Amino acid sequence: MNPNVKKVEYAVRGPIVQRAVQLEKELREGAKKPFTEVIRANIGDAHAMGQKPITFLRQVLALCAYPDLLEDNKFPEDAKQRARRILAACGGQSIGAYSASPGIECIRQDVARYIEKRDGGIPSNPDNIYLSTGASDAIVTILKLMICGEGRSRTGVMISIPSTRFTPRLWPIWAQCRSITIWMKISQVQSRECIEEVIRFAKEEHLFLMADEVYQDNVYADGCKFHSFKKVLFEMGPEYSNTVELASFHSTSKCYMGECGFRGGYMEIINMDPEVKAQLTKLVSVRLCPPVPGQALLDLVVNPPQPDESSYTTFIKERTAVLDALAEKARMTEEMFNTIPGITCNPVQGAMYTFPRISLPPKAIDKAKVSNTV
Amino acid sequence: MNPNVKKVEYAVRGPIVQRAVQLEKELREGAKKPFTEVIRANIGDAHAMGQKPITFLRQVLALCAYPDLLEDNKFPEDAKQRARRILAACGGQSIGAYSASPGIECIRQDVARYIEKRDGGIPSNPDNIYLSTGASDAIVTILKLMICGEGRSRTGVMISIPSTRFTPRLWPIWAQCRSITIWMKISQVQSRECIEEVIRFAKEEHLFLMADEVYQDNVYADGCKFHSFKKVLFEMGPEYSNTVELASFHSTSKCYMGECGFRGGYMEIINMDPEVKAQLTKLVSVRLCPPVPGQALLDLVVNPPQPDESSYTTFIKERTAVLDALAEKARMTEEMFNTIPGITCNPVQGAMYTFPRISLPPKAIDKAKVSNTV
Repeated sequence: MNPNVKKVEYAVRGPIVQRAVQLEKELREGAKKPFTEVIRANIGDAHAMGQKPITFLRQVLALCAYPDLLEDNKFPEDAKQRARRILAACGGQSIGAYSASPGIECIRQDVARYIEKRDGGIPSNPDNIYLSTGASDAIVTILKLMICGEGRSRTGVMISIPSTRFTPRLWPIWAQCRSITIWMKISQVQSRECIEEVIRFAKEEHLFLMADEVYQDNVYADGCKFHSFKKVLFEMGPEYSNTVELASFHSTSKCYMGECGFRGGYMEIINMDPEVKAQLTKLVSVRLCPPVPGQALLDLVVNPPQPDESSYTTFIKERTAVLDALAEKARMTEEMFNTIPGITCNPVQGAMYTFPRISLPPKAIDKAKVSNTV
Repeated sequence: MNPNVKKVEYAVRGPIVQRAVQLEKELREGAKKPFTEVIRANIGDAHAMGQKPITFLRQVLALCAYPDLLEDNKFPEDAKQRARRILAACGGQSIGAYSASPGIECIRQDVARYIEKRDGGIPSNPDNIYLSTGASDAIVTILKLMICGEGRSRTGVMISIPSTRFTPRLWPIWAQCRSITIWMKISQVQSRECIEEVIRFAKEEHLFLMADEVYQDNVYADGCKFHSFKKVLFEMGPEYSNTVELASFHSTSKCYMGECGFRGGYMEIINMDPEVKAQLTKLVSVRLCPPVPGQALLDLVVNPPQPDESSYTTFIKERTAVLDALAEKARMTEEMFNTIPGITCNPVQGAMYTFPRISLPPKAIDKAKVSNTV
């Protein structure tokens, strides 16, 4: 067996999740507890927590899955048009055909246009867009491309802590030159100044930057704003925008969509050496292609209904309701935590996680030490 | 950059595909050729080649994507029942929620029941079933789990040649003890005797067997029959069935479905050491979950309409038509190849590929030698 597999640790589904599963089982079997339900807050899974899918997205997906519905007058015309356009870009006009390995060409173009619009006109080239099986998959692809060596000569990865996606022990922080920086939004929205500082640091130390931007629409706090790493990079001038290597990630799993199950996402690659990029293209080719329903969904996310289209009003209403509810839940979570003795929690500025500080009583710490569970 | 990435070779999308892309481009730009169209036969992509999706599968997928359609009287009751059952097994009753990492529990149970039925009652345990992002993904997962070491001590992988999935140079054949055997159906249907021989060889040499069985429904030739490795293994008695380690793979991409774009599949693991299996479970957990639409589709493949259900007649009619057309195309391909001077082709017994022998004229070989393209 590969010994590296044994070394992997994965806290998101680790001992706390196992305990939750056990408690759920006990409750099902009729055990009496001071609670009746276990709520899984270990992973951002909006639909599992009751968030309703956005009608427009699902209408287009149903039309793509079963094109006979294109004749059905229950579906709005703009949903049908999107479905027709996506199907026309699929082999044999079917989402059951393989796509090109980096994703369907017209969806990569739509992603590039979305990024340009989001970043105030900074150009985006569809050739730099790779669609993926969710953001995690794209991140793993880049890490696979980059990480090599053993022991002290192994490529290092710097991450922000706490983080939901990577546990500290999985990617130890090694101070090295040929290392990679991953920055993740963790309920704190990064300020423009902070991003600039990261970019300057990356340039000085010749680091490859990876920006996990899947929460770009989940910014709640007053005065906070989403700044993409790419936009800041380009606004810092050619000294940076021509040299600093960046991969940024987005997905269909979070924000107002919350469509984790579809495993749709993309990455944009900036300033990557063309020969390395050719290797990246080969690497994604071996994986055949990302799931096509996820690609279709991503297309709708980057290309939502426009004000002159019939689905626009409902779409905006549903999107606003979801984002407002998430903001309200974030506020409630912070408030609730702060009412519990021994727990303090910072305001949640964005995303979907809180990282409250828990002050454990000395007796609990002593007991954990004795039972070796520290 | 990781030097192992540079070493990867991938013939399925290699120089011949690049030449095809170039020819397609030239044709689009109006170049005159002795042909008007390029047909891509490098990868089994049925829908891209005009095969129509099976109505029942797509109806259920549309219902899962947009459950408002459950109120629509255009859909047959059995399709609605399947959709309701799948949705009930999803977090928040949405295919947009993450599933458990090894796949939705009730779908793993359905897969186990399908295998039991297929193999004449040999038991299958849902705990041994892992759903995946297509068969390739499952194969890569097992290889990742197994392959380690460097140089001559590296785990070896034996494959049958020719093969569509792995190029010989990618997985050189090293004769070693701790190696893995992959057998792939390549238009020849393996006889029961051949499978028995492989199993005996695996037992003697302590090999881990991987059986790529994605073409289990694509058997055309008279007198040929699909034998699963698991069935043969169990029929060889406890000396084999209690010891030989086996992973077998299936997917939604081939057979009568041809739904490659959904990236759905499963693997069944037999006789794996429980500690290694725990590592496998951890490995798939890090990947979050396979695409849920692909899982839903797989459920329909292993649990198709039954004779007492309203969709049965259409389903069987469509399935038979697809399989008959594939058999006819296989026969035609063989016939056509054998009419061309210098090309000989064996009968296609199953699957979707021919491997004709091309006798190149000595002058062509000499020219290739000079231009270094041998």
